[in-house]
Amino acid sequence: MGRAIGELELIQRIRAGVGARKSAAVALGIGDDCAILRPPRGHEVLVTTDFSLEGRHFRRDWHPADAVGHRALARGLSDLAAMGAKPLAAFLSLGLPGEMTASRAGRKWIDGFFAGLAKLAEEFGVPLAGGDTSEAPGGLVLADIVLVGSAPLGRSLRRSGGRAGDRLYVTGSLGGSAAELAELAAGGRITRGAEHPHLYPVPRVRVGLELVRRRLATAAIDLSDGLSTDLAHVCAESRVGAEVWEAALPIAARATLEQALHGGEDYELLFAAPESVKMPGRVAGVPVTRVGRLLRGRGVSILGADGKKRELEAKGWEHFRR
Amino acid sequence: MGRAIGELELIQRIRAGVGARKSAAVALGIGDDCAILRPPRGHEVLVTTDFSLEGRHFRRDWHPADAVGHRALARGLSDLAAMGAKPLAAFLSLGLPGEMTASRAGRKWIDGFFAGLAKLAEEFGVPLAGGDTSEAPGGLVLADIVLVGSAPLGRSLRRSGGRAGDRLYVTGSLGGSAAELAELAAGGRITRGAEHPHLYPVPRVRVGLELVRRRLATAAIDLSDGLSTDLAHVCAESRVGAEVWEAALPIAARATLEQALHGGEDYELLFAAPESVKMPGRVAGVPVTRVGRLLRGRGVSILGADGKKRELEAKGWEHFRR
Repeated sequence: MGRAIGELELIQRIRAGVGARKSAAVALGIGDDCAILRPPRGHEVLVTTDFSLEGRHFRRDWHPADAVGHRALARGLSDLAAMGAKPLAAFLSLGLPGEMTASRAGRKWIDGFFAGLAKLAEEFGVPLAGGDTSEAPGGLVLADIVLVGSAPLGRSLRRSGGRAGDRLYVTGSLGGSAAELAELAAGGRITRGAEHPHLYPVPRVRVGLELVRRRLATAAIDLSDGLSTDLAHVCAESRVGAEVWEAALPIAARATLEQALHGGEDYELLFAAPESVKMPGRVAGVPVTRVGRLLRGRGVSILGADGKKRELEAKGWEHFRR
Repeated sequence: MGRAIGELELIQRIRAGVGARKSAAVALGIGDDCAILRPPRGHEVLVTTDFSLEGRHFRRDWHPADAVGHRALARGLSDLAAMGAKPLAAFLSLGLPGEMTASRAGRKWIDGFFAGLAKLAEEFGVPLAGGDTSEAPGGLVLADIVLVGSAPLGRSLRRSGGRAGDRLYVTGSLGGSAAELAELAAGGRITRGAEHPHLYPVPRVRVGLELVRRRLATAAIDLSDGLSTDLAHVCAESRVGAEVWEAALPIAARATLEQALHGGEDYELLFAAPESVKMPGRVAGVPVTRVGRLLRGRGVSILGADGKKRELEAKGWEHFRR
C-alpha cells in the first residue's frame, strides 16, 4: 500500500477514525504493506472492486460529500450481498485534487466523504483495513472501493445458479434511485429526513445472508445496472430465458415504469428460487416480491399490464450519459 | 463489480485473456458480482491496493504501455513479497479515456498495457480474477490494482517485528529505478534487452516466501518510497532507531548514492534479522547485502564513507514532484 508523501496526515486521520474499528477478522489493519485478514474457518473469500469516479459515478454539484462516501461503500457491500457474503473488511484507494487538501472547503468535503463512509461501515460492522491515497491528476476525486467478505464453502449465490422454472423475486422497490437522480439533475433540493434511494441506498447484506442461511435462492445479482440489464446477466450466466410481469413490479413511489425497469443503482437484490421453496413475504425485514420466472431458451420478455408480451430490451444505466 | 455499458467488449477480452488462467485458489473469476477465492487451509489472507494514475505514477510519453501494465501489477506483488505472502489473485480497476477505446492507437496502447500485465502475472502464476472498468473522466488512464495473497497463520512479516540489535539487509541493488527514470526524463532512448529496474522491476515474491519458510527475518518492507523513508517506517512501527552503513550499500551500476538512499520504486526488500540468524549470501537466487542495524531509541543515522555519522533524513520518492 504505497502513498504519496504529504498525505501522511490524511492516512493518520483515516487510521485513527474509520480505520480504528476493531474486528476479529482483521488481524492487521492500516499501516503495513498489506492488511491481514482471518476469514472464519471453512469459509470461502469473496472480493469485489468498484470505482466511484467524479463526473462518471457522481457529481460534486449534485451529490453531498457524505452521500459520495456512503454510495462508494454501498456499491461494494451490495456486491457482497448479491453473493450472500458477510463483509469482513473494506479497502479504499482515494485520489484527491491537490487544491482540495489545501483549502478549507476541500477539507470539509473530505471530512464529509469519510463521515458518510464511516456511518455505513459502522452500520454493517465492516472496518476500513487499508487502501492507497494519492494526489489525483486532472482535478477530480477518484475512489476505488474493495470489499472482502466470506461465505460458507460452496454456498455463495452465483449468477449462474438459476434453472428454467425458477421463480424470480426482487427485494424492496424499483426505480427510486433513478427518480431521485432525475430530481437532483433538475435542480431539486435535498429534503432532510426523507427517503433517499439514490443518495443513501441501503445494501441488502442481511437479506443475502438470510437467503444463504435458509437456502432460499439458487442465483442472485444486485440491481446496480437496472432490472432489464441485470436480469439479462443472470439469464446469460444461467443459460435460460425469463419473463417479467409488469403488473407485479414493486415500483417506487416517485418512479416510472421505465425507471423501475432500466434505472440502475437501486441496489436491491434480484434472485431466483425453485417453485418448491415457500418464500416468506419479508426476508430480514425487507419485502420480497415475485416479479416473474426463468424459462427454457433465451431472451427476456415482459408481460404488459395489457396482457401482451413484448421483448424486454436491456437498457441499463449508463450513469450520466442518458 | 459494476462496469459502464459499452465496455462489455473490453471485459470479454480481459476474461478471455489474462482472466482465463486457471488457479486452484480461484473458485470463481471474472463474471459475477464478486470473485470467490479459496486460500490454503491454515493460512491468513493478505490484501493490498495500489493506484497507478497517469501523470502521477506514470506518463504515457515516458513509459511504454507494457511497462505501465507491468509496473501496476509489480507494485501489488511487491507488497505481498514484503509480507512473505504467496499471490493468489489480482483485481484491476481500470479507467480509460473514451477517445482511447475509440482510436486505433488507443486500442494498441490498451493491448500493450494488458500484455505487460499478463506477462508478469504469468511469471508469478497469479490470475486476474476481477475488477471494474469505467470510462475515465479527465482524459487520463486510471488504474488501481488489488493483490490478494496468503501466508501460514501468524507467519507474515510485519514492519513492526524488528528488535534493537537486529541486522538490516537489502535484496538486489538500490537506486537503479531512479537512475533509469532520470534518463527517461532527460529524453533517453529505451534500450531493448538492457536491464530496466524502473520500467520492468522484478518483485521479490520468491525472496519473501523463502524468508518466511526459513524463518530468516523478523520484519520486512518493500523499497517503494526509498530506503530512507521505508527504513523510517520500519523504525516507527518497531519502535527502534537504525544505523545505515554507506560503504556497504549495493548501489546500482548507473545510480548515485542519493538515488540509492532516496530514490523510490526499486521494489527490493529491506528486512531485519536477529544476529543469531546465519544469513546466506543469496535468498531465492537474489543477492542479499547487510547494510546496517537496528538500535535502541529513535532516529536513523548513516555512517559515511568518511567514518562520520550523520542523520539520515527521510526524503522519499515524490513521483514527478522532485
